[in-house]
Amino acid sequence: MRVTVLGATGYGGMLLTRLLARHPEVKRVIPAARSAAGEPFAQTDPGFPRTGPAASKMDERVRSPDEALADPGDLVFSALPHGVSAEVCLPVLGSVPVIDLSADFRLDGADRFRSAYGREMPVPDLQSKSVYGLSEWYRTRLASADLIANPGCYPTCALLPLLPVVETTAPVGPVVINALSGISGAGRKAKALLLYAERTENATAYNVGTAHRHHAEIAEQLLFHGLADADGSDGHLHPSVLFNPHLIPMKQGMAATIVVHTESAAAAERAADALRGRYEMEPFIELTGSEPPETRHIRGTNRVRIGRRIDGATIILMSVLDNLWKGAAGQAVQNMNIRFGFPETAGLSDGLEL
Amino acid sequence: MRVTVLGATGYGGMLLTRLLARHPEVKRVIPAARSAAGEPFAQTDPGFPRTGPAASKMDERVRSPDEALADPGDLVFSALPHGVSAEVCLPVLGSVPVIDLSADFRLDGADRFRSAYGREMPVPDLQSKSVYGLSEWYRTRLASADLIANPGCYPTCALLPLLPVVETTAPVGPVVINALSGISGAGRKAKALLLYAERTENATAYNVGTAHRHHAEIAEQLLFHGLADADGSDGHLHPSVLFNPHLIPMKQGMAATIVVHTESAAAAERAADALRGRYEMEPFIELTGSEPPETRHIRGTNRVRIGRRIDGATIILMSVLDNLWKGAAGQAVQNMNIRFGFPETAGLSDGLEL
Amino acid sequence: MRVTVLGATGYGGMLLTRLLARHPEVKRVIPAARSAAGEPFAQTDPGFPRTGPAASKMDERVRSPDEALADPGDLVFSALPHGVSAEVCLPVLGSVPVIDLSADFRLDGADRFRSAYGREMPVPDLQSKSVYGLSEWYRTRLASADLIANPGCYPTCALLPLLPVVETTAPVGPVVINALSGISGAGRKAKALLLYAERTENATAYNVGTAHRHHAEIAEQLLFHGLADADGSDGHLHPSVLFNPHLIPMKQGMAATIVVHTESAAAAERAADALRGRYEMEPFIELTGSEPPETRHIRGTNRVRIGRRIDGATIILMSVLDNLWKGAAGQAVQNMNIRFGFPETAGLSDGLEL
Amino acid sequence: MRVTVLGATGYGGMLLTRLLARHPEVKRVIPAARSAAGEPFAQTDPGFPRTGPAASKMDERVRSPDEALADPGDLVFSALPHGVSAEVCLPVLGSVPVIDLSADFRLDGADRFRSAYGREMPVPDLQSKSVYGLSEWYRTRLASADLIANPGCYPTCALLPLLPVVETTAPVGPVVINALSGISGAGRKAKALLLYAERTENATAYNVGTAHRHHAEIAEQLLFHGLADADGSDGHLHPSVLFNPHLIPMKQGMAATIVVHTESAAAAERAADALRGRYEMEPFIELTGSEPPETRHIRGTNRVRIGRRIDGATIILMSVLDNLWKGAAGQAVQNMNIRFGFPETAGLSDGLEL
Repeated sequence: MRVTVLGATGYGGMLLTRLLARHPEVKRVIPAARSAAGEPFAQTDPGFPRTGPAASKMDERVRSPDEALADPGDLVFSALPHGVSAEVCLPVLGSVPVIDLSADFRLDGADRFRSAYGREMPVPDLQSKSVYGLSEWYRTRLASADLIANPGCYPTCALLPLLPVVETTAPVGPVVINALSGISGAGRKAKALLLYAERTENATAYNVGTAHRHHAEIAEQLLFHGLADADGSDGHLHPSVLFNPHLIPMKQGMAATIVVHTESAAAAERAADALRGRYEMEPFIELTGSEPPETRHIRGTNRVRIGRRIDGATIILMSVLDNLWKGAAGQAVQNMNIRFGFPETAGLSDGLEL
Repeated sequence: MRVTVLGATGYGGMLLTRLLARHPEVKRVIPAARSAAGEPFAQTDPGFPRTGPAASKMDERVRSPDEALADPGDLVFSALPHGVSAEVCLPVLGSVPVIDLSADFRLDGADRFRSAYGREMPVPDLQSKSVYGLSEWYRTRLASADLIANPGCYPTCALLPLLPVVETTAPVGPVVINALSGISGAGRKAKALLLYAERTENATAYNVGTAHRHHAEIAEQLLFHGLADADGSDGHLHPSVLFNPHLIPMKQGMAATIVVHTESAAAAERAADALRGRYEMEPFIELTGSEPPETRHIRGTNRVRIGRRIDGATIILMSVLDNLWKGAAGQAVQNMNIRFGFPETAGLSDGLEL
Repeated sequence: MRVTVLGATGYGGMLLTRLLARHPEVKRVIPAARSAAGEPFAQTDPGFPRTGPAASKMDERVRSPDEALADPGDLVFSALPHGVSAEVCLPVLGSVPVIDLSADFRLDGADRFRSAYGREMPVPDLQSKSVYGLSEWYRTRLASADLIANPGCYPTCALLPLLPVVETTAPVGPVVINALSGISGAGRKAKALLLYAERTENATAYNVGTAHRHHAEIAEQLLFHGLADADGSDGHLHPSVLFNPHLIPMKQGMAATIVVHTESAAAAERAADALRGRYEMEPFIELTGSEPPETRHIRGTNRVRIGRRIDGATIILMSVLDNLWKGAAGQAVQNMNIRFGFPETAGLSDGLEL
Repeated sequence: MRVTVLGATGYGGMLLTRLLARHPEVKRVIPAARSAAGEPFAQTDPGFPRTGPAASKMDERVRSPDEALADPGDLVFSALPHGVSAEVCLPVLGSVPVIDLSADFRLDGADRFRSAYGREMPVPDLQSKSVYGLSEWYRTRLASADLIANPGCYPTCALLPLLPVVETTAPVGPVVINALSGISGAGRKAKALLLYAERTENATAYNVGTAHRHHAEIAEQLLFHGLADADGSDGHLHPSVLFNPHLIPMKQGMAATIVVHTESAAAAERAADALRGRYEMEPFIELTGSEPPETRHIRGTNRVRIGRRIDGATIILMSVLDNLWKGAAGQAVQNMNIRFGFPETAGLSDGLEL
């Protein structure tokens, strides 16, 4: 395969090129990025090995997105920003499969999109053809999808533990999702708020409740999987899901702690059983029982760890993943594997982080 | 004043000696610690200035707790571990005021203590004489207390935003407290789990739901201030408060994000008003409105910052403090100031952390 | 006193306003910054306490530099960037004392300035009137200076241990200075290279040998204090001093490890004696003997710690300071104290960092 | 191959088991550690994937070293502490190849060993049979060695840039090595000095000059490669090499900055040429020219990056590596590959750290 990576200079795009360059089924990687067009690739990712098999698969020069899409190969990954991605990819949609890491095709509801992103859905016609790339939940459709909307990091971290639970039991009152993200989740923009000296020794909540864009993505998926009134937009007293993200001083990693009240202790136990039943054979999901998972244990891997504790009729779900792997580039490669019939774990062996 | 600090070699005890050594009303500080008894104080806190006014107030040699209590001066601070503190202080209780930073006298309910600490309350008779040292809420009683139970860091961070709210409106369903703590909150013990290489790039939930000892402390105070069924121990389906603590990679700092569902949007607004009304004149509490507070802005200070967001009938409270200052040693000095009639801010000027 | 701070939004400027706002002799602080002109000061430094004595000394609104200099009060601090500072301050030079934290007036040699900064010395006539603000070495001249060139952080950290040594014994071969700096030393610019995710888990040398601008500053001062051929610019085989700076993942702090070969073991011992003799009465210098000093012990303070080890005829000097305190704003306030006859430690008590 | 790893619970041992478990030529890994003997392996390395090909190669239970050595398989790695390693491995030396990551067999000189380690060389007879495992320099001998003394992290980082230089030109005056290490280099011991809260925001030199044990190792190798008077122990005025290590707040990574004065600018250029000539074909060595290398670019890889700058007749070498990979476990696997005739890069693909 010959694959194009648009937005190859962001954190997600960088990891994507590295994963693809060592993927056994990929023969050629074409990096593209507007800001670095024309530059040697070795300069845009100075940590890339200078020689060896991975280096030999990379195009030496970064292309502009337009130039890359003129001859995109067998698959296009877009790690471009929201709003830009759909527009840039439009010319090739339909002719070559696209895995889009932006939010442009993630939401089905036009109102929900408008409210979360403050503008119209970019290409509503294509929306219905896109498949939400939560690999473990949409495998069949992903296998034949030509437009895959790769999920956000927070939604992946929250939905994987939540979906088996809400499919099994109806939550009593709102679901409360608390989540922590490493700084790389905010992207590679030169903003004062992301400077080392501003973020070290600093933790903060932001866009809590229903304010974060990923709230809409989580709420919509929960709605599809049976949680009534998913976004509280219809005037109900309490939103049916609240999402409280935090930025904490680490580079990679994400943790979600989720409180779901159920109707009985037995229902909470059934929810825990559903989690086990649903995931015990999944190659990238590890259940830790009542042991809280730690982000360091999945850093640099495509694995998700999920633990849970039951307090009366309440189940507390705890999940961790690496926001750049399963939360972005890793899941994108997993989706490529599904789409092209490769073994799902191909090219996704662990990064060996202690 | 001449004051004794028991447990002067832990993080709380170290900050306590430093704060006291520059307190305008303190003339002499007597550091005591079993492990360092007999050593020069300069060796136990190598960052202490070697000369100058603060150094000149410090006893040069660390005493054993017993030796120190034989001549304790006007006030004893105990930063000894839970379980040890009450026992060590017992001989002087009644004859000299004691501010205890351990949990030994924080809980009123003997059952609750037993369940949280796995042993009997150490001195039940004295429990009724101790005053819970949440400064902004127990000033009058603290002014004449001879035994002050200084609150835990998590309870201080959770209760300050919660108490005005639960006094104003009855929460609908359980209150969900999510909290993040810097590593110094786990103490200065040489444990593998606290090593730099184990905690950097690592976030984890631990003891969630009702499992953390501070859950009992929070639940009891909420009960005293009107939240029914505070700990869920009576068989109700859902605990009335859930507390999910996390350890994150920073040294000092704590953030709580708390979800309270109320009966109406108007009730949520009243709760926000109560917060403002209760705290706008407090020297150590700063309200940030809908702006989420950041831990860096209060690091090295005794200040607490509280923000809130309203989503329908739900109010989300966000509070930050420095776990070693307002969460431990700073509040202990504030309580000393209240007890001895000094200006409440004496000796507590900011640490100038950018 | 009423003082103006130009460049109040950088890290040095921020700490300067905070130190001045609690300085006992300062009644009013006028913050100025081009980028924030007109904004409320509380917005430009969100960690500043919102009420209390420090807050009451601050002007509420940030002025533009021009506006501020129209009525500058009794003293102007300039924390503006190199190249800008001299030009902006020019109108008030001579009429009001100026302490300049930029490099614009630090060098005496026009050639050296040109070679280090790639342009002409901004105001050569004034250069001869400026006094280099290394407080412990130029006290007498600082006491009557109307233009003080506050030293760079690296030069302060290197020169304090080196000057007594080179005044005592002639080094054999080049002096090798190795130094480590926290990220705040690179300033508060929104540059990709300073992002948290780029700097954590990352250490790198940069501008080694004679390439860093601070090399010129160090070399010139060593020349003034007796080290021949200070910058190697005259064709000698080896520069007489080499300066190897490194950026390491911490916010504040600086450490220098300096190798000086002398002519004999006795000469090395004499150098160590000179260090002790020169500094034992200094309020801000602490000698640690053969114990290596640690940056954490002086973080948030104006103190410098210096240790040394002797290996044969070689003396290895180790010094640490906080780059924002003694390396910038702290020393600037120390210089103000000297210039105005205040106690030298006024307003410079420790920040209580454990 | 079936391989045993003694000391599998330290950082070096943990990475070793992970590298071996994905090595294409290794079929079985036997983890051993006194402290964890009998425990499930999944418990001693909780970040290890729970299923998949790597997990299936691991023995499920950790053995005691004695038990493991009763049936050690085809190769023994010892990541046991200095002093313990030689003694434990003695019974199998000669019958099965051993790669020892401790310092027990690294030094040839009995005096040098005694002076560095404060005790006698453990098995002097075997010393002469051991080969120093600096892969790029001892390949031929390693290919048939039955006892490989894997180098220390600092020596690897210093010797790789230095050896081509000292073989090419005679340094004028002492070589000065400055080095920075991440905290994992200090091992996984529960010591207060290694706690997160003690090491974050903290940099310190330690054991400078000739005091660190790795000084002896570096000095001896430099002596073997032509640097006269390598350790200064014969009464010369200046040691011929000085080694100044520092501990800085990061987990993995090491940087060395080395100053070598030569007799002429031409000699310095020849040294730079030698570096290029010696390493340009090496798979794990990347030359960055005058660009300073950064530790993040080789984190989680077995690669070493080396840059250099020439100032007059002085050459400044800058090298970076990951102390757990090329500085320990990675080089050990590289040595296994050499010894057993596998491709030298087998099992050593990058860890994908951005």
